[in-house]
Amino acid sequence: MTTKSIPVNPKQTGLSTGKTKTALQSGDTMKALVYFGPGKKSWEEKPKPLISQPTDALVKILKTTICGTDLHIMKGDVPEVSVGRIIGHEGVGIVEEVGTAVSNFKKGDHVLISCITSCGKCDYCKRGMYSHCENGGWILGHLIDGTQAEYVRIPYADNSLYHIPAGSDEEALVMLSDILPTGFECGVLNGKVQPGNTVVIVGSGPIGLAALLTAQFYSPAEIIMIDPDDNRLATAKKFGATQVINNSKENAIERVKQLTGNKGADTVIEAVGIPATFELCQSLVGAGGTIANIGVHGKSVELHLEKLWAHNITITTRLVDTVTTPMLLKTVQSKKLDSKQLITHHFKLSDIINAYDTFQNAAREKALKVILTNE
Amino acid sequence: MTTKSIPVNPKQTGLSTGKTKTALQSGDTMKALVYFGPGKKSWEEKPKPLISQPTDALVKILKTTICGTDLHIMKGDVPEVSVGRIIGHEGVGIVEEVGTAVSNFKKGDHVLISCITSCGKCDYCKRGMYSHCENGGWILGHLIDGTQAEYVRIPYADNSLYHIPAGSDEEALVMLSDILPTGFECGVLNGKVQPGNTVVIVGSGPIGLAALLTAQFYSPAEIIMIDPDDNRLATAKKFGATQVINNSKENAIERVKQLTGNKGADTVIEAVGIPATFELCQSLVGAGGTIANIGVHGKSVELHLEKLWAHNITITTRLVDTVTTPMLLKTVQSKKLDSKQLITHHFKLSDIINAYDTFQNAAREKALKVILTNE
Amino acid sequence: MTTKSIPVNPKQTGLSTGKTKTALQSGDTMKALVYFGPGKKSWEEKPKPLISQPTDALVKILKTTICGTDLHIMKGDVPEVSVGRIIGHEGVGIVEEVGTAVSNFKKGDHVLISCITSCGKCDYCKRGMYSHCENGGWILGHLIDGTQAEYVRIPYADNSLYHIPAGSDEEALVMLSDILPTGFECGVLNGKVQPGNTVVIVGSGPIGLAALLTAQFYSPAEIIMIDPDDNRLATAKKFGATQVINNSKENAIERVKQLTGNKGADTVIEAVGIPATFELCQSLVGAGGTIANIGVHGKSVELHLEKLWAHNITITTRLVDTVTTPMLLKTVQSKKLDSKQLITHHFKLSDIINAYDTFQNAAREKALKVILTNE
Amino acid sequence: MTTKSIPVNPKQTGLSTGKTKTALQSGDTMKALVYFGPGKKSWEEKPKPLISQPTDALVKILKTTICGTDLHIMKGDVPEVSVGRIIGHEGVGIVEEVGTAVSNFKKGDHVLISCITSCGKCDYCKRGMYSHCENGGWILGHLIDGTQAEYVRIPYADNSLYHIPAGSDEEALVMLSDILPTGFECGVLNGKVQPGNTVVIVGSGPIGLAALLTAQFYSPAEIIMIDPDDNRLATAKKFGATQVINNSKENAIERVKQLTGNKGADTVIEAVGIPATFELCQSLVGAGGTIANIGVHGKSVELHLEKLWAHNITITTRLVDTVTTPMLLKTVQSKKLDSKQLITHHFKLSDIINAYDTFQNAAREKALKVILTNE
Repeated sequence: MTTKSIPVNPKQTGLSTGKTKTALQSGDTMKALVYFGPGKKSWEEKPKPLISQPTDALVKILKTTICGTDLHIMKGDVPEVSVGRIIGHEGVGIVEEVGTAVSNFKKGDHVLISCITSCGKCDYCKRGMYSHCENGGWILGHLIDGTQAEYVRIPYADNSLYHIPAGSDEEALVMLSDILPTGFECGVLNGKVQPGNTVVIVGSGPIGLAALLTAQFYSPAEIIMIDPDDNRLATAKKFGATQVINNSKENAIERVKQLTGNKGADTVIEAVGIPATFELCQSLVGAGGTIANIGVHGKSVELHLEKLWAHNITITTRLVDTVTTPMLLKTVQSKKLDSKQLITHHFKLSDIINAYDTFQNAAREKALKVILTNE
Repeated sequence: MTTKSIPVNPKQTGLSTGKTKTALQSGDTMKALVYFGPGKKSWEEKPKPLISQPTDALVKILKTTICGTDLHIMKGDVPEVSVGRIIGHEGVGIVEEVGTAVSNFKKGDHVLISCITSCGKCDYCKRGMYSHCENGGWILGHLIDGTQAEYVRIPYADNSLYHIPAGSDEEALVMLSDILPTGFECGVLNGKVQPGNTVVIVGSGPIGLAALLTAQFYSPAEIIMIDPDDNRLATAKKFGATQVINNSKENAIERVKQLTGNKGADTVIEAVGIPATFELCQSLVGAGGTIANIGVHGKSVELHLEKLWAHNITITTRLVDTVTTPMLLKTVQSKKLDSKQLITHHFKLSDIINAYDTFQNAAREKALKVILTNE
Repeated sequence: MTTKSIPVNPKQTGLSTGKTKTALQSGDTMKALVYFGPGKKSWEEKPKPLISQPTDALVKILKTTICGTDLHIMKGDVPEVSVGRIIGHEGVGIVEEVGTAVSNFKKGDHVLISCITSCGKCDYCKRGMYSHCENGGWILGHLIDGTQAEYVRIPYADNSLYHIPAGSDEEALVMLSDILPTGFECGVLNGKVQPGNTVVIVGSGPIGLAALLTAQFYSPAEIIMIDPDDNRLATAKKFGATQVINNSKENAIERVKQLTGNKGADTVIEAVGIPATFELCQSLVGAGGTIANIGVHGKSVELHLEKLWAHNITITTRLVDTVTTPMLLKTVQSKKLDSKQLITHHFKLSDIINAYDTFQNAAREKALKVILTNE
Repeated sequence: MTTKSIPVNPKQTGLSTGKTKTALQSGDTMKALVYFGPGKKSWEEKPKPLISQPTDALVKILKTTICGTDLHIMKGDVPEVSVGRIIGHEGVGIVEEVGTAVSNFKKGDHVLISCITSCGKCDYCKRGMYSHCENGGWILGHLIDGTQAEYVRIPYADNSLYHIPAGSDEEALVMLSDILPTGFECGVLNGKVQPGNTVVIVGSGPIGLAALLTAQFYSPAEIIMIDPDDNRLATAKKFGATQVINNSKENAIERVKQLTGNKGADTVIEAVGIPATFELCQSLVGAGGTIANIGVHGKSVELHLEKLWAHNITITTRLVDTVTTPMLLKTVQSKKLDSKQLITHHFKLSDIINAYDTFQNAAREKALKVILTNE
């Protein structure tokens, strides 16, 4: 999940309240990672969640991970997250119990948890914009308790969970909760990557690499990766980039001009989220091309309409909808996508505080994604 | 044509030079409107143009018009326009002569002149991006002599002229040279206007009205027009706007929120070209919606990615390609589009200096488009 | 609904069984039109339906209508319809009661009933193919009891009902249960109708007329209607056809050739369902065009691939998905679509046997759609 | 080229006549393969072609190949081919001379010859339907002299030739004249192949294999190849098929049902051209899927609308437009497509009679495509 200051939906807060209420009825407990305000988190005992709506499922977490957004939450950058909230919006697990209206899942099913909760029945869900679901959206580990815990309650389970086929590598599938659909939907699909085209990805962090992996579904001729970190660029090369540019050492604009015969790129994917990188994207895109933004921006940017107004450019933004999760599951099953490459570190779920340390020092630790296993 | 500081193509300059050369071979003259530097123009004698390439046609102008861009040129805002240039990029006429490689047209054919010259054989033309034609694009009345004259040379005539069906109202078709394809392609098509949707058009000048007329091809439920001029809004009402908002008198953002149940518009069309109106557009567009820019911007604008990054927004820019001219001709023929509504004033071509006066004082004169007839 | 021999889904049959079971628990009765085998129907007392699933709603019918498919059922052409089944799949009503998982609707809401039941959570529903819903699809008045009754149980109410805006003409909205989305989705959308194009509709019955009305959303230049009945063609003219051809009196193929400059039509909509009309469509479509089938076919047809293989043709089939119902509601609200024109006769619901008589003799009675009001 | 009985365009015949006329003015000769009626062909002396239009180019053939359609011509199946015609519509060569209106190419350029001649200025060319070009289309080796010769005249050279990048394997590019764009456009693009989808290709001959190679641009989860020849299926496996079915030995319908969880395939590509294989395709396609026809059909087929009318199916036909040739060139350059795999045999151009023998006995010779080199 990549987010910042998404307007809070009253119904979503309602869901959160509902949860607290039902928790009071239960005596069972579990361990979970809890946010206690900026800089404060703790792995501690919490009431085990309960089914509170007929459309809920209760899922025992098998594996989860940490997202860059979780670091933002921990810094206090996401004010909607209240003190006492269990963090996390990714993971795979086993269904423990389902509400009376849940029909796609039953106790014992192995499931992939989507970072986006979709009710399946509001206008946005019907249009495939699950991110803007009037009753869900990104609520896990944000407006309701999340997945960095032994158990999690999943609202609208029929539309927010996905069956894991028998024999799957479940660790690899944790990458399908958020990072891969984000790179694919916001970067690759919005960027209209096509066979034979030239794609530039600005930012070779986990999300840029997720875009790199899924851009290859469409066989572009060139995928050029730009980043100031040589180590990340080496990873990009390994993951399929055809060219890499260290923009702290060389002029990326000149290099892309040269690689594209002065025409600029067909698709430019912004995978950082600061004004400087968005500025760079505007200099890299060719006439008729697309800038697909994935980055979470905290500030406005300067848009050079005085140049771009006549260049037939498209700029897109998107919060991941996870509407492509079924497609992505098939590409992992059929080995067209090796999502496991994104995983660099493993921890026990109970060792999550150390996992945060590693993930927070990604450059030093050469960390991309960490896997936390509930043993 | 709406333009400002389009990078000049050397081949295009070449065309211009070519023209001058052949003109020297002829003794015939004609009258034309000539640009003599900022603020200076004159209706005067010039050599009648000659066929210089096998793909050229020579067209006798029947009717032409003045574009807002011509006013910019006259102010000196378009530095590529050299002193001595004949202005104008719109019109209908009769073919006087064709080069040896022209096969779609012959002497005596009545033709619509496109503001965009398309060679039909470069990469951009093959992709339908005639605006970026490597051998043409917007060159008429810009890099080569234009249509505010008794005669004009049209390069790549087979791809840049269109047959006028017998019995057509030729005056109405002058609106298809530039303003209607611009409103339609840059605003309506890029804005993905759909049946049942809500469209907002910011700016009720000629180009906004062209978008308004052609948006109705797709039967949106609401077309809301925003402008600070009540007279223009009255015209918009007459042309089919379902709601009008005078944003000098009322809060346009609040009004659109109310009209859309707080969801914002599906399509917002920018038809002004200044930072304030682009800023407004960003506050009007709903999640999943599109901002389609038509306006010619002289300055950069502030893009609120800190809000929009998560709103699944698309922003488009486009220089008109006139790739829809055949479609628009059919809609005029079948009376789905009454392009004549845009015409408010008539002049003789030889009276063009007065026509400029009227057009320059559009608000006072209640002028939209003027027709100049070569009698 | 237009259907014949759709494979029966076991889950759907299950729904039907569920209904019977709960009905036994209630003492209330209502009147309904019941099918008793080929040629036998009766307006008689039946148990009032009950909520049997948390996702159900119970709706009191205000207005309903009769579909051509109901006539097929009555003849015994739809073998899945069992003796004792209440017929009907269209209507508007008032919500009487909702199950515990229904959140979009509450008692007292005025609702439009879709002919297609959508669970919103199977693979097909997520792809917008509600017609193939694994838990629904066309089941009303087919596999479960339908709407030609005082009350009806609607499964998956949140996804299968639509709010009627206050102040609507509810009679007009009955046309949105089936016939208008059918004409629009199967004919107009699948047929890719575009501004300026030429559309031919073969068959000027109610469904062809529904395609005619909704094709106009996209401003085609020509809509040519073909039918052997002059009365129906006169209606088509009134509804917006630009040309009508009585193919019992003149050669439709020659006429269309002449009207299209020998190029053939861009879109041909088959709205009859017999081999002869599908054969005709193949002779009318131009290179690059589309034949969009709406007709319910009882026999295979001959496809002239020996000619069409090289003509860049698309042929589409579709069972209505009603995925465009929200869009259609907006077009009715904004008066872009006058759906009421399709209504020719009115009856009391209790007078339904007479209504069937009239509708069965549509040509003699000049009947299009009849409205039955539950008074 | 795959063709049979395409209606002959008078303008195209005109081009042919034009050619003959100019040939008379020259004394130079060359060797070429000439058709002399059913079963009769000869490698013999012919006048070297001349530039006859300002848009022509004269190309010296470097490498050419033989197409299945050439075999049809030789059998007399293509009546428009007149006695004395030079056959062949594929190849690479060097530009020898260009007409006065040709600007994209000059003497000495290495070029790929497209099997489709495109004028770039008729309605169909502007729509990207070069196959239906009013002045071109498939005319090479059909209505005008072709490429199985030492020299060939190419009309509309600017739109019908493509630059070969320096350092290319020119042999591999011969596959881009016809077979690869045919498999890609008619099969893969029309079939809407998508990541994660299931594709079935019926027919594992050269054209089915071309579809197989290019389908992989879009990373479908499964590509199932069906053919009665084990040798061809082995090739398919090597080229990337995930499953192969010998339908002379096993029930293809049952196997595909099982492989797709009874849902049927998303895309079925017909690459044979007989009623039996088109019949099979109808049983393999799933609801919502597409049958993309590539096969050249000599007879009509039975279309089971009595079943398919309700299954949301799309059927497409297409004569290759070669509109994707620039894209395909980029995929070959960037090694996303190894087109050379299709080449099994090599001959001198002067040994073309033997090459025909081998190609005619493809099964026995295990031949896919042969390369003829003009040494």
